[in-house]
Amino acid sequence: MNLVIKIGGHLIFRKEGVDVKLLREHASILRELYDGGRWAVVVGGGDFARKYVEASRNLGINEAASDSLAVQVTRINARLLSLALGDAAYQAIPATLDRVREYAALGKIVVLGGLQPGQSTVGVAALTAEALEAEKLIIATDVDGVYTSDPKTDPNAKLLEEVTLGKLQQILSKTSHKAGEYKLIDAIALKILSRSRIPAIYINGGNPENLRKAILGEKIGTLVKPE
Amino acid sequence: MNLVIKIGGHLIFRKEGVDVKLLREHASILRELYDGGRWAVVVGGGDFARKYVEASRNLGINEAASDSLAVQVTRINARLLSLALGDAAYQAIPATLDRVREYAALGKIVVLGGLQPGQSTVGVAALTAEALEAEKLIIATDVDGVYTSDPKTDPNAKLLEEVTLGKLQQILSKTSHKAGEYKLIDAIALKILSRSRIPAIYINGGNPENLRKAILGEKIGTLVKPE
Amino acid sequence: MNLVIKIGGHLIFRKEGVDVKLLREHASILRELYDGGRWAVVVGGGDFARKYVEASRNLGINEAASDSLAVQVTRINARLLSLALGDAAYQAIPATLDRVREYAALGKIVVLGGLQPGQSTVGVAALTAEALEAEKLIIATDVDGVYTSDPKTDPNAKLLEEVTLGKLQQILSKTSHKAGEYKLIDAIALKILSRSRIPAIYINGGNPENLRKAILGEKIGTLVKPE
Amino acid sequence: MNLVIKIGGHLIFRKEGVDVKLLREHASILRELYDGGRWAVVVGGGDFARKYVEASRNLGINEAASDSLAVQVTRINARLLSLALGDAAYQAIPATLDRVREYAALGKIVVLGGLQPGQSTVGVAALTAEALEAEKLIIATDVDGVYTSDPKTDPNAKLLEEVTLGKLQQILSKTSHKAGEYKLIDAIALKILSRSRIPAIYINGGNPENLRKAILGEKIGTLVKPE
Amino acid sequence: MNLVIKIGGHLIFRKEGVDVKLLREHASILRELYDGGRWAVVVGGGDFARKYVEASRNLGINEAASDSLAVQVTRINARLLSLALGDAAYQAIPATLDRVREYAALGKIVVLGGLQPGQSTVGVAALTAEALEAEKLIIATDVDGVYTSDPKTDPNAKLLEEVTLGKLQQILSKTSHKAGEYKLIDAIALKILSRSRIPAIYINGGNPENLRKAILGEKIGTLVKPE
Amino acid sequence: MNLVIKIGGHLIFRKEGVDVKLLREHASILRELYDGGRWAVVVGGGDFARKYVEASRNLGINEAASDSLAVQVTRINARLLSLALGDAAYQAIPATLDRVREYAALGKIVVLGGLQPGQSTVGVAALTAEALEAEKLIIATDVDGVYTSDPKTDPNAKLLEEVTLGKLQQILSKTSHKAGEYKLIDAIALKILSRSRIPAIYINGGNPENLRKAILGEKIGTLVKPE
Repeated sequence: MNLVIKIGGHLIFRKEGVDVKLLREHASILRELYDGGRWAVVVGGGDFARKYVEASRNLGINEAASDSLAVQVTRINARLLSLALGDAAYQAIPATLDRVREYAALGKIVVLGGLQPGQSTVGVAALTAEALEAEKLIIATDVDGVYTSDPKTDPNAKLLEEVTLGKLQQILSKTSHKAGEYKLIDAIALKILSRSRIPAIYINGGNPENLRKAILGEKIGTLVKPE
Repeated sequence: MNLVIKIGGHLIFRKEGVDVKLLREHASILRELYDGGRWAVVVGGGDFARKYVEASRNLGINEAASDSLAVQVTRINARLLSLALGDAAYQAIPATLDRVREYAALGKIVVLGGLQPGQSTVGVAALTAEALEAEKLIIATDVDGVYTSDPKTDPNAKLLEEVTLGKLQQILSKTSHKAGEYKLIDAIALKILSRSRIPAIYINGGNPENLRKAILGEKIGTLVKPE
Repeated sequence: MNLVIKIGGHLIFRKEGVDVKLLREHASILRELYDGGRWAVVVGGGDFARKYVEASRNLGINEAASDSLAVQVTRINARLLSLALGDAAYQAIPATLDRVREYAALGKIVVLGGLQPGQSTVGVAALTAEALEAEKLIIATDVDGVYTSDPKTDPNAKLLEEVTLGKLQQILSKTSHKAGEYKLIDAIALKILSRSRIPAIYINGGNPENLRKAILGEKIGTLVKPE
Repeated sequence: MNLVIKIGGHLIFRKEGVDVKLLREHASILRELYDGGRWAVVVGGGDFARKYVEASRNLGINEAASDSLAVQVTRINARLLSLALGDAAYQAIPATLDRVREYAALGKIVVLGGLQPGQSTVGVAALTAEALEAEKLIIATDVDGVYTSDPKTDPNAKLLEEVTLGKLQQILSKTSHKAGEYKLIDAIALKILSRSRIPAIYINGGNPENLRKAILGEKIGTLVKPE
Repeated sequence: MNLVIKIGGHLIFRKEGVDVKLLREHASILRELYDGGRWAVVVGGGDFARKYVEASRNLGINEAASDSLAVQVTRINARLLSLALGDAAYQAIPATLDRVREYAALGKIVVLGGLQPGQSTVGVAALTAEALEAEKLIIATDVDGVYTSDPKTDPNAKLLEEVTLGKLQQILSKTSHKAGEYKLIDAIALKILSRSRIPAIYINGGNPENLRKAILGEKIGTLVKPE
Repeated sequence: MNLVIKIGGHLIFRKEGVDVKLLREHASILRELYDGGRWAVVVGGGDFARKYVEASRNLGINEAASDSLAVQVTRINARLLSLALGDAAYQAIPATLDRVREYAALGKIVVLGGLQPGQSTVGVAALTAEALEAEKLIIATDVDGVYTSDPKTDPNAKLLEEVTLGKLQQILSKTSHKAGEYKLIDAIALKILSRSRIPAIYINGGNPENLRKAILGEKIGTLVKPE
């Protein structure tokens, strides 16, 4: 099976420090379930990335350059996960999509962070899923999946078991996103998943068993279907 | 002055071959007007890129990998322009935004193509403009600027002298774009120009004198204002 | 078996565009016959390379720099073939002979283009054959093999089944070569094949079955023997 | 003047986040005083590095690999400082001493972090000072200089205005260092400063004016003389 | 088994030239015994390195830059050994510890020389042993092991079968080392072996059978125990 | 002035060691006369390269891989010269012609060795001369220039003041060259000098004043004219 997993940086790289326990559990499940196919795990930036970007903006540095700091942080995060995976992971962190394709063919899980400023790690994960011809993209965030509306403000928000990409786009356009807020997906990722018809599964990564279920194809979180 | 120029690949790299005359004229104007600031020229793919992508799709290769071929072609195009610029250009083609920033500080015009699959060269140009803190982004295409509607289908379409980014987005959303059609801008580029408040000037690059005017700040084409 | 195959760029990358059908057939035969040994395929530049070099010369750019454009094109051609080969090919295009040796040891077909300006892709193929200790070098061009004289001008020209390197050199020295004409071999390649005693087989690559025969050791085209 | 400055990571990259104000002041003094000579600034890891190393150790990852995470963090820190320095700094962070020498010759301040696991950033600073033939190495920490004994435990500890390398070594050997405690210098750095006879000046980097004084050759902190 | 072997440069790369016979014998034993684990062989500089460093110093070039020449020579030495090992060796010489880890996971013996100026190849070997989690580090020099005192000056010097790292440090501190003399170990290597509790075995590499014994765990030379 | 100088490796890197005095004198003249133009110095392999290649062949390693060792040695030689040149030289040794062009534009002398196996350093020098649009190529060997026949065997051999490329080729074809013997030029170099019409000057590099004269355009050695 070819598979791409996106792990939100804030899940593991938190204000309080690295959540070693959660990282170890994720690593353990990945090692256990890895089947030798093309697997890539894309790790986000989390709190350390946020701190560098904030500092950079405070210094008056432009967004593109500030973003390059965040990309660097995602790569350290990826490196820590690849070390935790040990022999199951390719022991270099690719910085281009070409390298991702190259490493993914060598029978190891490829772990990466961002690629370039101006691309979100969700976008990178979608692109990677396309490049590796993944059968699905698992996106682990800190919420249980996609809701009918914002569960933080709307008490009637309902978790969706399944949603089309088109419908997801509609829901997101209604939810106003302030800068810095967690974004489920961006325009690039939507476009890529749509053109390549790759299903995405949103899970709550706070419980590592959700990752296991999503990999094994059991029902969990929200399934986003291309159509 | 810090400046970024995007040259549409189809202007110069055409079905019939490379338009050497137009390339030489562009190079000549750039050499003449270069003031030692941070200048970057982003070159698109043109017909050769299109041919590789088509072949790749026909071979059943995924979009991300196909796009990587187009990125490679843009870099050859960039290399040809940098050779034509001679001593005025930095003689290496950067493949990351970090390298763009590095080279642009060395007192030469940096010429580049695409950076990664999944980023259009317009998006790269906007990102580069932000990273180099350009005072404007000049976008040379094969039309005279931005019209009120599609001039190919609407005889009443009027060329706009000035338009806001918001208005541009509106016009574009009304114009249906079939795959392969020329796109003036994409979502990423719009977002970057907006957040960094960098004005863009659309010119018809078929007439090299338009490039001169746009660089010198004379009225030409359509000015897209951040607000 | 260790094996190197040179595919003339003009066979596949033609004025009309990429010959997707022929490329697919070559890829299919290579995938089918690959035995896990050190195999490399060296792809030439073809018509796109020619167009860039012509444009470069018209711009007054020196030969060495113009040649570097052609080298870049050969690498895109190589990349397209490696994508078509999929999992059978190493998914990075080496730019140095050291990388060729490195990748070729990893159980995948290595696809490459040129290495440096001033080296023909036939020379690169000979060097690669030596470095990989190939038992033969297959050279696919658009003619059926080596003739006693130029078949285009001499109606009595006869296809040779076998020829020594020394005799080949003699035949070539009699045939005047205008710039741009197809050259069967160059001085460097001759010297390398001679010192390493590697036989070369010239085949007409227009018929992919010839490639199969040459790989399997069946009689086809012209065998060039070291002695 | 050729000059190397080591900035302790904990000065700026603290548990609370990046000390933007202090970073800006350091950048401002460096920009103001830079004379076009070979200058390098070596930035340490600080609290973010510590957090990654701790997490890595908790995951059971070996010291060498854990240290590689810290090296990566120092490079992000270096990048942030180089961005803050703007045009005065070379806009790439060297990862080898050869690159340091290369960049330092181009008329810009080179900012770097660590080079390899197993080398402290003080060791890197000493090596850089030697490679750039610096006339002095300024080491900014969070104490005022070298004391006769540990000022935290000994109320009679006195700040030394001047000390020889040999004497410094003696003082340090008497002070027991628990893991994680701040170390003024290590064996490698001592050896390099000694063989190349480069004086070091320890200053309290918490007050940026100390940096100015040290650069200008005014009396501040502790001067460590080679003999 | 994970294993690191350090081969002293002077054993093979001698004033008289390369000791091809000894190199071949070492390569043969390594090929024969390699078990697919993470193995790295670190090769020193030998006489060629010494000559470059001497020339460099005579030219007044600083130590750090001179050392970079020696590092380059160790990499050529490593390359020669990797060529001699053929398919058993990874065919690229890593220049960073990250690359060592990356290559060592691919089922081939990794051969390397030095990494950075300011690190001895013994230090590199210790670091590599730690990074690969080697169960032992074999150090092949031109003496039979560790002696109670310097055997060249003290007729009563006795070869030790076993010694602790602490005791080794004591012995070394009593032996005065003039510049250029062969050093068994340095401070960095001692620290790394100690913290990672990796045993080292000193053998006389002049007899290749000693290497075999040391790899197979038979009694030979001096065993240096972490405790 | 754009200028390329080829320094025969055997002039400086000799069986006895590095000729530091001669290297210093060459460096001194280059520093003194450098005018800020595009200058490149190509350094050959000399005796160290010969020793590695011999050892490699004795180990049964193929010519292409053996040659890669020689290329590495030329780069160390180049590095030593670049260190001796100090601030006048670009402090990185390019490994591709593209890098040569890139570095040569930065106002420093570029020093390089070989580029790829299968290219002699004379070939590299000719290619570099073409790429930098050098007005001449100075080739420093251990003889006074080109003779009418081999001066070692023919007492009537006369030194030529001037010779055409065509005539040079004739003379060389009459002189039988045993393997390992010094070769004045090869087929590739002849072709490049001819097509780009770059004159070459053969001088005896054993006397550094000859280098000065050749740079300044004074009559010395043999002038090889394109026609």
